[in-house]
Amino acid sequence: MRLLKEKIKNEGIVLNNSILKVDAFLNHQIDPELMMELGREFSKRFADKKVSKILTIESSGIAVALTTALFFHVPVVFARKQKSSTMNENLYSTKVFSFTKNITNNVAVSKKFLPPGENILILDDFLANGEAAMGLVDLVHQAGSNVVGIGIVIEKSFQPGRKRLIDAGYQVESLARIKAFEKGQIVFADDNE
Amino acid sequence: MRLLKEKIKNEGIVLNNSILKVDAFLNHQIDPELMMELGREFSKRFADKKVSKILTIESSGIAVALTTALFFHVPVVFARKQKSSTMNENLYSTKVFSFTKNITNNVAVSKKFLPPGENILILDDFLANGEAAMGLVDLVHQAGSNVVGIGIVIEKSFQPGRKRLIDAGYQVESLARIKAFEKGQIVFADDNE
Repeated sequence: MRLLKEKIKNEGIVLNNSILKVDAFLNHQIDPELMMELGREFSKRFADKKVSKILTIESSGIAVALTTALFFHVPVVFARKQKSSTMNENLYSTKVFSFTKNITNNVAVSKKFLPPGENILILDDFLANGEAAMGLVDLVHQAGSNVVGIGIVIEKSFQPGRKRLIDAGYQVESLARIKAFEKGQIVFADDNE
Repeated sequence: MRLLKEKIKNEGIVLNNSILKVDAFLNHQIDPELMMELGREFSKRFADKKVSKILTIESSGIAVALTTALFFHVPVVFARKQKSSTMNENLYSTKVFSFTKNITNNVAVSKKFLPPGENILILDDFLANGEAAMGLVDLVHQAGSNVVGIGIVIEKSFQPGRKRLIDAGYQVESLARIKAFEKGQIVFADDNE
């Protein structure tokens, strides 16, 4: 998606050869018009999926999940990160390891808001190792619902997440795919744009 | 705001005489169309304030901050909660005590996204004791910026937050004001609707 790639080039900061900071427009400061365009794009890419609910994870997934939901006219549910795994019969929960922070979060969602039989679109800001996305998939499966697709704002294509999700059988749509960081410059994967 | 009050009546759950759960549409599951209407209403109430940026706090403030920002055509910044107060010269930080959870969070925002001279609208989902709102005010003042107003989705008017913010000189606009919970029922303050 050209608009997003331009934004990443102009405002993203490459910290080393694997970390990209986009807190100028995506995950600390948020550009609302850009979020609407991302939502519009996701709604096109998953238009035929009969999406009935969008699942994301706090905090950085919420903005793009909300704008996408406006196009689909469906609710958003965001899973919550918890430091400790408190057993609670009203929650589905799963463990998500963060390679960046080197911690395991317990991620949970109320059973009430993730009923069986839904067509769930999973959205997140980044895809690297696929830990968060696979955690959300696990929550949907615990609920007996159906994952109809996985939408990602920025994919680091040189990390194993994409392959892991594709191999598990999911349609993955990433709006910007980064092939490498070379000498502090961002190289996008060829996505026929 | 009639639409919001109806939603609270129909889907809110009164847990005891001070806790209202609205996780069906505001802070776990999110109703995107309702968020747009809340954003529209905030944009009317603060229309004359020359808002240049919206500041909120993760996670439950993000959705309504985003829709409000769409009407004002300004960026959103969300402050992050941190368990520990790690000193960092690139951050403004402050302490926010949560009466509900009985913990103190360190709340921080990058200096880069909170420059001096801005007209900041502070938004949050709930107002009870005013701890979060006053924390956000403190961050804005550390930055040398101007708080032009404080918008709240649901105010518990029987708790001291509103008076605290008004006494400090701020315009407070709450879209639903709850006077009391009586026998599990929600009593709204008279707001001339």
